Parts: sequence; structure tokens; C-alpha cells
Amino acid sequence: MKKYAIIVAGGSGQRMGSSIPKQFLLLGGKPLIFFTVRAFLESYDDMKVVLVLPEDFVARGEDIIAEMKFQERVTIVAGGELRFHSVKKGLEQIEEPSVVFVHDGVRCLVSAELIHRCYEQALEKGSAIPSVAATDSVRISEDGKSSIVDRSKIRLIQTPQTFRSEILVPAYNQEFQEGFTDDATVVEAIGQQIFLIEGEYDNIKITRPLDLVIAEKLFHQKLSALEG
Amino acid sequence: MKKYAIIVAGGSGQRMGSSIPKQFLLLGGKPLIFFTVRAFLESYDDMKVVLVLPEDFVARGEDIIAEMKFQERVTIVAGGELRFHSVKKGLEQIEEPSVVFVHDGVRCLVSAELIHRCYEQALEKGSAIPSVAATDSVRISEDGKSSIVDRSKIRLIQTPQTFRSEILVPAYNQEFQEGFTDDATVVEAIGQQIFLIEGEYDNIKITRPLDLVIAEKLFHQKLSALEG
Repeated sequence: MKKYAIIVAGGSGQRMGSSIPKQFLLLGGKPLIFFTVRAFLESYDDMKVVLVLPEDFVARGEDIIAEMKFQERVTIVAGGELRFHSVKKGLEQIEEPSVVFVHDGVRCLVSAELIHRCYEQALEKGSAIPSVAATDSVRISEDGKSSIVDRSKIRLIQTPQTFRSEILVPAYNQEFQEGFTDDATVVEAIGQQIFLIEGEYDNIKITRPLDLVIAEKLFHQKLSALEG
Repeated sequence: MKKYAIIVAGGSGQRMGSSIPKQFLLLGGKPLIFFTVRAFLESYDDMKVVLVLPEDFVARGEDIIAEMKFQERVTIVAGGELRFHSVKKGLEQIEEPSVVFVHDGVRCLVSAELIHRCYEQALEKGSAIPSVAATDSVRISEDGKSSIVDRSKIRLIQTPQTFRSEILVPAYNQEFQEGFTDDATVVEAIGQQIFLIEGEYDNIKITRPLDLVIAEKLFHQKLSALEG
């Protein structure tokens, strides 16, 4: 089956207290998205990557990709106003039928193993949404009051959110709604059930300066493991 | 007001894949609980610490404390079967009225600033439960199906869970119930409202090998900051 990773990297990076969008921050001397794109390219020989960047950063993205092995399998497109619109632009580049991975550009530590498991489950069930258990107790807070939630039922959601194209493409053809916070919610809105899969604790989203420190540490560990 | 930190460190550490309970794992050459105890001792001149350890590790705890500045403000007691029983044993050591901080032994990166804020709020409102927002989307999963939760309402709960003794002591005099997963749930069960406060992302719970790596990194950063 054809495979496409739509890597969404349209954020402005304001939470990092940096003027560089976080997907371009350096990790071991290279921008985060270099590693994210590479993880997908290396996961399958026939994986194609659609990298969605803010319009002003497309040229910069091209420079980064120009250095990469397998660059012929990467297409860069300019994103839209919100994540929803960016994914929609990415989907214009794919052929059907296929399995589509929608992935956060700043989750650069995603493993080939997780990508493989998502692929297998999406093929079989139509979708695979990686998620991990919460380490801490969880409460729902509203109007100044809070109540405990059974922690065993809580799942923290990651990406790549992976779907068969015949589910994902129609979902992104509907009108945008407020509640569309990720691909799973977009797909549910057309009446499709989504299926979770076990994610990885290391598959973190780089959103704060601390996360970059963690990623750097993990990244060195992974490199040592590969070279060791 | 008198101040007591009950530091609960009764876990067996099985999740770390280590035969050493995780509260004794080394960080910069010293056991985790050394740093946890020190953080509380240094936060206020009149802070007393009750360190609750598994019975077999009390002697080891005494060796660790023997090296510390302010060791005269530390009491070590043997814990009970569950966290609930361990906290109850710790509470036998306090005088009232006081403000009591109940803290996970493996959250060794807690800051003096958070301890101070918890104290102020507990004095004023009766309780202070530190919590942070979720970075990822959150779902509630049940019977193989899952549904999205409004992320802005989700709070990940940390410690020190801080209370005025006149609220916490009666709460721990009730019978144990299944749903007692932390101090906040124990206090709610006697009909008291609990009050959240903003926690800290760095105030992580060391439960997996990855967490130890992160803690080591953060710990070095903090030391560098202190040393200027």
C-alpha cells in the first residue's frame, strides 16, 4: 500500500520564547524537522513525505531537505491558517488508496517501530492513534472546581495519527469546526470510529525549552544505541 | 505556623527495571530522596520533614540523612501497606495546628518557590494541590472506545499536596477506600473542597529510566544556575 507522511510544522514557536519557529530549532546542530522527516523516510523504502511549512519558511525547508538522503521522496507545501487547513493542503499531494500518517513536525523522536505499528493497525482497522497512559493523577477542572478522573481511563494522545486514505480524505473535505483539535476529532466528525494504539513515552512534543533539553539527551542516547 | 513535609517514599521501584527502590537511585552521586528532603529543609528555616520509608530501608535512610545539613529537623518512620497508610504513619509525627505538605519522594526537583506558594494558599484556603496543563490532546478510553476531553479542563496533578492540619488529620482518620489515589481524594471524601494551584513542569515524578535521565539534566541546569 502507498504510504504518505504529512508532517505538519506550521507553528510560530511563541511558547519557546524564541523568534525561530520551534520546528527549526537545532538539535545536535540540525533543525528538529530534519530528524522528523528522516524518521519517516527511513521507516519504509516507499514512504513519501509531504512537509507542510509556513509560507515564509518554504525556502528554508528546501535548503534543509537538499542535504538529505532520499530527498526525492519529499514534497514541501505551504500551510494554511490552522492545522486543519495545513493537513488539507498536504492531502492534495497524496495518491489513493494509501495509508496516511499525520505527524507533528516537532515530534522528532518518533521511532520506526511506532510508525510500523501504526501502519499495520491502520491497514487493518482504518486508523491508529498513538497514546500513552498518564503518569500523574488527572483532574477535570471547571468553574474553579475540580474532580478526579479514573487515571486508568486517561490517554494522552500523540502522533502520527494514521489512517487509510478513504477515511481521512473525506473527513478533511468537510467544513472546519471549532472542536477539530487533531485528526482523530476530524475523522470522528464524519461518523468514523477511531482506534487507539500504544504510543511511546519518548515521542515527546517539543513545546517548551525544557523539552529541547530532553530531546537532545534522548537523541544522543538513540545515536549511541545505533552506533554501539 | 508550624510546617511539616511528609515525604512518602515507600515504592518498590519495579517500573524502573531495577532492584533498588527508585527513591534510592543515584542522581549526581546521591540518592533521589536526598534531594527531595533537602528541597524541603531549605525552603523554610522551621520546616520539619517526616520521611516515610519501607521498613527494610529505614537504616539506609538514616545513613543518608546523617550526611545532611539540618538533619535535626528530619524524622524517619516506617511506612504502611499502601500510600494511605504511609501518610497516616507520617501524620502521627506532627503537631497541630500546622501546614502539612505531602510529597512524593521521587519528585526531587520541586522548587522552593512552589513550596512557598503551596504554603501561602493552604494557609488561606485550606489546601493547595499543584497541577499543570496537558501538552497533548487527552481522551477518555473505556471498553475499547475513546472520546476527546476538552484539554483546557484537564489538569495533571503533582505534589506537594498541601493542607492545613485541621483538614488533613481528620481526613486520614477515616477508613481506607479504594478511590484514595492521593491526598486530595482522601480530603474530598470527608466533604472538603480542594483547591488547585499552578504546579511546575520540571516537578516530574521519576518513574521510568527516561525520567532519571531528564532529572539528571535538569538537576545539572539548576546547579549551574545556583552557582551562577
